[in-house]
Amino acid sequence: MGQPKQERAVQTRSALVRAAAEVFDEYGYAGAGINRILKRAGLTAGALYFHFGSKEGLAEAVMNAGQDTVEPLLESRGLQRLVDVTLVWAHRLGVDPLLRAGVELSLGHEDFADGAPFESRRELMAGYLREARDLGELREGVDPEVVARFVVGACTGIQLYSRQVDGRASLPQRVKEMWDCLLPGIAAPGTAQDFDTGVARGERLGRMGAQA
Amino acid sequence: MGQPKQERAVQTRSALVRAAAEVFDEYGYAGAGINRILKRAGLTAGALYFHFGSKEGLAEAVMNAGQDTVEPLLESRGLQRLVDVTLVWAHRLGVDPLLRAGVELSLGHEDFADGAPFESRRELMAGYLREARDLGELREGVDPEVVARFVVGACTGIQLYSRQVDGRASLPQRVKEMWDCLLPGIAAPGTAQDFDTGVARGERLGRMGAQA
Repeated sequence: MGQPKQERAVQTRSALVRAAAEVFDEYGYAGAGINRILKRAGLTAGALYFHFGSKEGLAEAVMNAGQDTVEPLLESRGLQRLVDVTLVWAHRLGVDPLLRAGVELSLGHEDFADGAPFESRRELMAGYLREARDLGELREGVDPEVVARFVVGACTGIQLYSRQVDGRASLPQRVKEMWDCLLPGIAAPGTAQDFDTGVARGERLGRMGAQA
Repeated sequence: MGQPKQERAVQTRSALVRAAAEVFDEYGYAGAGINRILKRAGLTAGALYFHFGSKEGLAEAVMNAGQDTVEPLLESRGLQRLVDVTLVWAHRLGVDPLLRAGVELSLGHEDFADGAPFESRRELMAGYLREARDLGELREGVDPEVVARFVVGACTGIQLYSRQVDGRASLPQRVKEMWDCLLPGIAAPGTAQDFDTGVARGERLGRMGAQA
């Protein structure tokens, strides 16, 4: 009988995206030959062009596939949720080539450098910060939009810094330190210690996504 | 009579570095052909190989030449000096192709990606933060090393974010916002407003370096 046609198509698409992510992660976008991707996926060039049109189309799919699978599972709200999203991201960058390839592509290649990945991330974070404000968690005068814009930029840079000095091994600790620097200035006075910014929390929440 | 030989050598070296910076800035490192650099400098390949050995050697000189020329002229101390260094950097990235090319090279190319530009920047900033601590400007419990490491990463990322969304036009404003987010958490209680984080200050201090 075999699988229904549609299911096979989904599996083929997914195998190509994962193989491309691994090869982009290992060799960089420019160095990721199509043949290498096809060999890794065990598929033919026909499948790639049918599903994605080109290597660029495949790269775009990799970027989109690197979306957060944990975020919808989180139960926290407001500031703790903002913290959680960054902790999980730092943890998952260490274990998920799909996410890593997406980050590399969104930063490193002018074809994809329209700022859209930054802006969608900023909008996500601004939402949690508005929620935090409504919950009374923010210090008076703190603008959710300004903080969101800053946190997106800051995460991008500490990721690059840690990638270059230790292959991202320090990234979870650096994200914790970011919050240690930031929370006393943005959280309501005396509440910064109420938020859990620990590396262990990121690991625990990150595993949740992997099981889902 | 002509110039003394040594003086001519310095001028040749400097012309090559500036031409390379402009071409790297306009075309990227990979797209910056040696012929284009030589044409811009009005010099021969012999001069390039004599002074730098290779295109990589020239790129390394560009990175080193992008050092801050304003920083030694600043009169501020401690936290205000840390703020000033970042304000001036944001302003100068808009007007100095040498600095821009240095930043691009230190981020974008694996040949140069050993983290050294990050680490030297971090050490500079940690020094100002230790001075700030000794001046009693830091909130209790704030670690100069942690803040320095975070600020270097954060600056890197907000630079990339602003480059991708508006060609760095917003960078000075974003650096101001970084300090608006950070200072209330790291400066001694009630003193955050004492520091001038304004875009106008960066412009004024930045011009100082251009005249020097």
